[in-house]
Amino acid sequence: MSDLTIWTLDWVPEGPRGFVRDLRLRWACEEAGFAYSVRSVAFDGRETNHLSQQPFGQVPFLSDGKLELFESGAGLLYLARKSEKLMPLDPAGEAQTVQWVIAALNSIEMVSVPWWFLEITGAKDNGLVGWLESRLGHIERVLSEREWLVADRFTVADLLMADVLRIPKVRSFGSRPATEQYVSRLTDRPAFKKARADQLAHFAAGDKSRPPQR
Amino acid sequence: MSDLTIWTLDWVPEGPRGFVRDLRLRWACEEAGFAYSVRSVAFDGRETNHLSQQPFGQVPFLSDGKLELFESGAGLLYLARKSEKLMPLDPAGEAQTVQWVIAALNSIEMVSVPWWFLEITGAKDNGLVGWLESRLGHIERVLSEREWLVADRFTVADLLMADVLRIPKVRSFGSRPATEQYVSRLTDRPAFKKARADQLAHFAAGDKSRPPQR
Repeated sequence: MSDLTIWTLDWVPEGPRGFVRDLRLRWACEEAGFAYSVRSVAFDGRETNHLSQQPFGQVPFLSDGKLELFESGAGLLYLARKSEKLMPLDPAGEAQTVQWVIAALNSIEMVSVPWWFLEITGAKDNGLVGWLESRLGHIERVLSEREWLVADRFTVADLLMADVLRIPKVRSFGSRPATEQYVSRLTDRPAFKKARADQLAHFAAGDKSRPPQR
Repeated sequence: MSDLTIWTLDWVPEGPRGFVRDLRLRWACEEAGFAYSVRSVAFDGRETNHLSQQPFGQVPFLSDGKLELFESGAGLLYLARKSEKLMPLDPAGEAQTVQWVIAALNSIEMVSVPWWFLEITGAKDNGLVGWLESRLGHIERVLSEREWLVADRFTVADLLMADVLRIPKVRSFGSRPATEQYVSRLTDRPAFKKARADQLAHFAAGDKSRPPQR
């Protein structure tokens, strides 16, 4: 287990700090009690400087000895296979965890991330509003009926869903009290707080090696 | 294995026929040689009539005895765990299959589906064009260097990536010869052709029970 390495950028601007997706993998490792190290690829040239490890030029990716994995969702499921703290390891519990991990990525983020992208790039008329309302309404209904997504316990599905839903713009879109309580409860976990603080410290350390004009 | 049931709608309009995502699960079952049945929920009232089985009101979902799973990606990975024809079952091969399944859903579809949605809903200025160009460019580079995504062999990752990339609007966006060859090669497989023909027949059968004014 000692070979687990989470790769992220060496620096990012203020805006994304606390939200870069290496946080998902840090959080999972903290929940499970895994030892891990964090290494960096350069922010400058990030579009092409690590395509051999992440073919879309993004972060994070995870290495475990010789195995390298990109996609934060895949990293979460890989880590979860190593610890029952992250996922029930019976076939049904595992399948349902995979189901909700993919729901977070393909039923929520597939709408929320492009909606957010259009918002921040200044689209005059964001054509994804109605679709986002629908998807967030569905997850609000689910979360109003249960505390956890899978098997009445914390899993990486909750970790990921909470991370997807905690984005400030998404969180402030409409009134969804069950979602709000869910996000608050998940982000109040010590493992989340540790992961977030460590990410902030990592990027702050990167400030020191940046040219002063930035 | 005989309890596998793929659930879809009883009818859809002409446009989506051949593209409804139950095709992904049919295709996987055909590749693996699994016996399965197909059952329907009603198109009319689909937004709310099967929320207990699919909390976003979509199709498909999969049942295997008492286990019910939604999200086509989760269904594919569930089926893949049952047959080495769909995925290498060593931990590294499985992790890399999960990685590319999630890449198809969260790095390609997260851009291509909202881009397509804006196109068909008549957005004047589709703000996702540049992002889509970037993502499709990255996958074109990957596919120009290899025949299969994982382990030099067919897996559900190829099944899903090809299904994501074969959408006509996405396929006609720019010139990407490696992607085009990949999609052609995958959709030329007998299991895909059988799955597609069966889906078309299923929805055609639904025509008979529709009111004539539709």
